[in-house]
Amino acid sequence: MKALIIAAGEGKRIRDVSKNLPKPLTPLLGLSLIERVILSAKSAGINDFVIVLGYKGDKIREKLGDGSKYGVSIEYVENKEWKKGNGLSVLSAEDKINENFILLMSDHLFDPDVLRELRRRKLAGADGILVIDRGRRDHIDLEDATKVRIRDDMIVDIGKNLDEFDGIDCGIFLFSERIFDALKESLKRGDDTLSGGVRVLAENGRMRFMDIGNGFWIDIDTRESLKFAEKHLLKSLIKSTDGPISRYINRKVSIPISKFLVENTRVSPNAISIVSFLISLLSAFLFSFGQWLYIALAGLLAQFSSIIDGCDGEIARLKFRESEYGAWMDSVLDRYADCLVIFGMMYGHWMVHTDFMIWIWGFFAAVGGVLNSYTAIKFDQIVKRRKIKYRFGRDIRLFIIMLGSIVNQVFLTLIILAFLTNIENLRRVIISSKQKDY
Amino acid sequence: MKALIIAAGEGKRIRDVSKNLPKPLTPLLGLSLIERVILSAKSAGINDFVIVLGYKGDKIREKLGDGSKYGVSIEYVENKEWKKGNGLSVLSAEDKINENFILLMSDHLFDPDVLRELRRRKLAGADGILVIDRGRRDHIDLEDATKVRIRDDMIVDIGKNLDEFDGIDCGIFLFSERIFDALKESLKRGDDTLSGGVRVLAENGRMRFMDIGNGFWIDIDTRESLKFAEKHLLKSLIKSTDGPISRYINRKVSIPISKFLVENTRVSPNAISIVSFLISLLSAFLFSFGQWLYIALAGLLAQFSSIIDGCDGEIARLKFRESEYGAWMDSVLDRYADCLVIFGMMYGHWMVHTDFMIWIWGFFAAVGGVLNSYTAIKFDQIVKRRKIKYRFGRDIRLFIIMLGSIVNQVFLTLIILAFLTNIENLRRVIISSKQKDY
Repeated sequence: MKALIIAAGEGKRIRDVSKNLPKPLTPLLGLSLIERVILSAKSAGINDFVIVLGYKGDKIREKLGDGSKYGVSIEYVENKEWKKGNGLSVLSAEDKINENFILLMSDHLFDPDVLRELRRRKLAGADGILVIDRGRRDHIDLEDATKVRIRDDMIVDIGKNLDEFDGIDCGIFLFSERIFDALKESLKRGDDTLSGGVRVLAENGRMRFMDIGNGFWIDIDTRESLKFAEKHLLKSLIKSTDGPISRYINRKVSIPISKFLVENTRVSPNAISIVSFLISLLSAFLFSFGQWLYIALAGLLAQFSSIIDGCDGEIARLKFRESEYGAWMDSVLDRYADCLVIFGMMYGHWMVHTDFMIWIWGFFAAVGGVLNSYTAIKFDQIVKRRKIKYRFGRDIRLFIIMLGSIVNQVFLTLIILAFLTNIENLRRVIISSKQKDY
Repeated sequence: MKALIIAAGEGKRIRDVSKNLPKPLTPLLGLSLIERVILSAKSAGINDFVIVLGYKGDKIREKLGDGSKYGVSIEYVENKEWKKGNGLSVLSAEDKINENFILLMSDHLFDPDVLRELRRRKLAGADGILVIDRGRRDHIDLEDATKVRIRDDMIVDIGKNLDEFDGIDCGIFLFSERIFDALKESLKRGDDTLSGGVRVLAENGRMRFMDIGNGFWIDIDTRESLKFAEKHLLKSLIKSTDGPISRYINRKVSIPISKFLVENTRVSPNAISIVSFLISLLSAFLFSFGQWLYIALAGLLAQFSSIIDGCDGEIARLKFRESEYGAWMDSVLDRYADCLVIFGMMYGHWMVHTDFMIWIWGFFAAVGGVLNSYTAIKFDQIVKRRKIKYRFGRDIRLFIIMLGSIVNQVFLTLIILAFLTNIENLRRVIISSKQKDY
């Protein structure tokens, strides 16, 4: 299925942010708006795009090219009359479309799940499905928004100036080719907007809607909406499996770092994984000296590596660069980093105190920690089902190491870790055994 | 969807094995034939059964009950005329069936995948689909088998005495209720067999077939076919992810042990997991003495625990008791067992030689081994795609420990393990990075 993206408008209201760029190229956390629309659609399974250009179309074409750098295919059409209604932009793509298609706006961001759901829907006799928002959300500029009236599962009216309305047009559509006839009919009536075409379908009882529910969407029209979108994207980086240290401390630092990195560099998530590993290595090396100042510094570095370890996933998600391999390689490096840090602690303590018990406690602290991560793979699936919030993981382990190091208690720290990690593993095995569906 | 199982016959030819039991209760590796049929169907997604009883039906009813102990529901019907053709057995269940249903024979074993595939098929205008075997397999008694002739995707003739034939009736059917009319029609012609009813459907162009391909099935009619089925079931316990030591050494011992256990005890797979863990614990304890005789014995025990570790999965599969939790708990126990064995080796060596280097090598041997299993979770998925046969895993690690212990080389063994396991982990990360689809 193709997606048609309207990228013809000028976007006057956001000009102060986008400078002399056309609105679709307005940057947001390392990607332009239209890149976010394309990559969101791609992650919902769409690989073929038709983009309607108008105001400063050359700049957009130059930026996106044939789409190969995004792993998609992009065709362009030009709408010379872009200053008129946006219905003309849709009509200008008529020759490129010959089956049902998705219509998107280059300045409307959305959660890919919304589009995934829309693609599953069937037209079932209708010629269009419009995604609408029936909640009243704070960030929606009601004056500027396109409203709809509905009856049963059909749209019965649409327009900016409806006095009473049931929902807001989210700018995400599934259409059959019949929308082109409807747009022509609307043109005859003197209405050159997309809403005009939708109204023609609605009048004939051929326009359905899909409720966006809790799915996220936003029309980026002003500096304020751009800020709101940024805030939402950054907040969504906190994962449901995050432990407490990660959620309340590490993310507070790693997210601003990730924001800086995506806005100012092209660094890859895998490179960040390796940097985090190297910081752990340095921490292990400092621990091995066995003297307090080294130990304290090493503990701080261990916690710092834990923070940086959040950035690879954050950058991957912000830039649509998540990969199964990347996540796996990162997790393997994390396990080695954990073990090497503990090894450094044991070695340093041994060299200074020659108490062989450190090898025993360190051994069980390392094994317990690695097996924490090993058991988590399956346990997380169970936690998901049971919606438990508490999670003992790497964030807590490295935080304990930092605290213990600052107060020069390597030996005690390893004893505590050996107990906590192995008890947690036992707890997981016991809790899971009580799950009926396991 | 319901499954109707014909369990009315006497099974004279197998009487010497089943003693005075009705044939469906003939034992095979810890379960009776009809239990295997029910549990195979259950694992293919069928939960409601109607069983036709005849010869010694009370004993079957007594054994199976209402099915709740298998997690299914079983109803019974009685066919007083069980000495006559088996078409009458099917007819006797007419009142219990009011939609499409699966028909199975209580003495025909099959791979659940075959039934899974049959359930996906649509009757598409026909009134029956018969699973047929178009290969000529050594274990099929051609004289006694029911043969079929086919044209395109339809069955055109069926019977024991066809001169020319295209395939063998596997005794696995999907029927609409129309089979009952066809059986009555056949009865009028003087043929009271199921094949008679199928022939009526075939004559009217309403009987399709499904080719069983490489799927396993067997009609248990004689002592020889029972032995063949046993051999097949035991052979199928070897897993594609088994390492070389497991495949060529451990399974040769564990499978006969599992056979003994399912035939003579009711021991649960999880109990075996725990026994294997306890043997490892004993091995670790013996290692901790640090003297050669203890070490050699400990090494042999480690290898023995590796062998017993195969039995839990084997028993689970033989008795249809596989569970996600059981497999997971076993893997967590295995990781702890591995670490404790290595800890025993380190501790014993330290006590005798007080060389602190043992702690370092042991640490990395343990960590490398656990991370072998950690990386395997994802790597196995890749191996599957690439069909590599070689796999470095627990079987090899414990075998190396046994060899090293016999020759009293604990120190060297841990060095070797530290290198092999960690290099293998590095290899996996590198190989995976080159997989395009990752």
